[in-house]
Amino acid sequence: MNGNIQAIKLFHEIINCVRSQFNERGYTEVIVPRLVKASGACENINTLFEIHVDGEKKWFSGHRGYLTQTGQLYLEAFVPNFEKVYCIGPSFRAEPGVDSRHLTEFTMAEIEFAGGFDNLLEEISETIWGLAQHFSNDTQAAARVGLNKENIKRLKKVPRRFYEITYDEAIHTLIRQGDEIEWGDDISSRQEKKLVELVGNQPLFITRFPDPMWNFKREIEVEKFFNMIPDKDNPGRVLSCDLILPFGGEAVGAAARIHEEKTLVKRLKNSRMFKRLLDKGGALSDFGWYIEALRENGSVPHAGCGFGLARIAQFIAGEEDIRKCVPFVLNQQNII
Amino acid sequence: MNGNIQAIKLFHEIINCVRSQFNERGYTEVIVPRLVKASGACENINTLFEIHVDGEKKWFSGHRGYLTQTGQLYLEAFVPNFEKVYCIGPSFRAEPGVDSRHLTEFTMAEIEFAGGFDNLLEEISETIWGLAQHFSNDTQAAARVGLNKENIKRLKKVPRRFYEITYDEAIHTLIRQGDEIEWGDDISSRQEKKLVELVGNQPLFITRFPDPMWNFKREIEVEKFFNMIPDKDNPGRVLSCDLILPFGGEAVGAAARIHEEKTLVKRLKNSRMFKRLLDKGGALSDFGWYIEALRENGSVPHAGCGFGLARIAQFIAGEEDIRKCVPFVLNQQNII
Repeated sequence: MNGNIQAIKLFHEIINCVRSQFNERGYTEVIVPRLVKASGACENINTLFEIHVDGEKKWFSGHRGYLTQTGQLYLEAFVPNFEKVYCIGPSFRAEPGVDSRHLTEFTMAEIEFAGGFDNLLEEISETIWGLAQHFSNDTQAAARVGLNKENIKRLKKVPRRFYEITYDEAIHTLIRQGDEIEWGDDISSRQEKKLVELVGNQPLFITRFPDPMWNFKREIEVEKFFNMIPDKDNPGRVLSCDLILPFGGEAVGAAARIHEEKTLVKRLKNSRMFKRLLDKGGALSDFGWYIEALRENGSVPHAGCGFGLARIAQFIAGEEDIRKCVPFVLNQQNII
Repeated sequence: MNGNIQAIKLFHEIINCVRSQFNERGYTEVIVPRLVKASGACENINTLFEIHVDGEKKWFSGHRGYLTQTGQLYLEAFVPNFEKVYCIGPSFRAEPGVDSRHLTEFTMAEIEFAGGFDNLLEEISETIWGLAQHFSNDTQAAARVGLNKENIKRLKKVPRRFYEITYDEAIHTLIRQGDEIEWGDDISSRQEKKLVELVGNQPLFITRFPDPMWNFKREIEVEKFFNMIPDKDNPGRVLSCDLILPFGGEAVGAAARIHEEKTLVKRLKNSRMFKRLLDKGGALSDFGWYIEALRENGSVPHAGCGFGLARIAQFIAGEEDIRKCVPFVLNQQNII
């Protein structure tokens, strides 16, 4: 049967725990749109689903519609008003890979708040640690979702503040371990797993990735969303972070965000994502509403991240295959 | 600026109140898919948004993808396992009307539970009354969303169990009032408003609509979802109900559901919706997973409904225009 009973229970528990934490910490829930302009894309703009009506692809008064990959900008616009905002909902990716790590639709919890990069790492640690505590302290909750003793013991040991290495350190470590990788390359999921093992199979932050808009005089593989803040102390790096979890792998993508209009537009125009958007028939006007909001409403220094709840569910359940941890398995081979 | 600060606050409050009520009453939250086969359509199958990838409309292993209009069947499938289930998320309609009543994307809270038609009316009354109580008793909550004294006074008077008339009574009443309407016609939003005024501007259930699959020997205008249960005591009527709210108008659609596989398939095949689905290039296989779930997992007598939260927000705020009550106004003229 389509639909995993155990995973429904697990998701009910995880979402309620995450939401309670956000509400208790003073976050406001914002219902963000899910059918959007290209401003709902993450850096992987080539995996956008397009919306048509009776074959018409510019149904919205001449505009194209896409399914949202992230609610990030729709949250960022309201940080000046609410300081702390969040949303929980579907993220869509036209991802052709049918495997143990990818889905075409999955649930993301996203936060944006007035604060800096250190606060951001703290918010992420607290949230995931809070989940680990929930299941290791509340034996009824653990029983409801069918966690075994080994899992509960493992979750009890999760530290409150997670280990942290920079992207540069990660690359050097992998090279020392004999891996074929060069500075500027993406770190594969197999390599992420290796790094997590080196810190005793605990959650690991990889921080300060290469800045794709920096002139390295050569192509680099790493791609990051255009509005990440360059790190003043480390030229050519951005204040970004991926959280790697045992079992789930890369489960959170995070960064401090540019809040100054001119820098933002300049970086957007210089991004590879923007070139792809033009190829797809999009334009700067896809981001017009956000640029206008910055101009009209102003902004404040802020940061945020997206929690991939299915990968977090893998971490809680101790399960290597994402398909065993979601209420419905949704990929190119399975639509219901 | 795109995005209504006051409406964000109101939605945060409404969603949290509704969700708490469901959780307290023992409902399990199910994360339903939003990119679906035609089984995610309500009776208005002609307003489905289609999903394409690089111009390919059958990207899902030869299947078409649509945006969900309702999570109903995805919830119904799990009533045998959980007894009470709910979801809160976006409903999408390719609705070309740009006016004070329609949106292309709005938030629905949906419930399905093991129980009958009377229980259903009770669940709906309790939920909306609970919301009215929340804002009229908690002065801080009312202040947070900017409700004035008049609104608070109005909400205090909302009865715990709502007035109820049948569709037949509604038609006779309207004819007596001099309205041009015939039995079998849809009741317009102007007429709904008139009926609500007749019960002192309080929420009003209109129940037992004509059964579109009954042979009346003539065409009727009323369309209802194929799996509504025929009313044994009233031949040619179904156990369905619309809740009409002051300001918001039709805000909840509800029915007792058929849980027997053969009757369900027969009614589906006889529905106008199914004929339109075939015209659109769909097939019975769009509903295959659900029919299979009924066969494998069985079902139990159950009922459910969808709460249109924007129209409920209108009711709370005392606002005639839906566009003033939603975090983002999303219609054919406005995509962001």
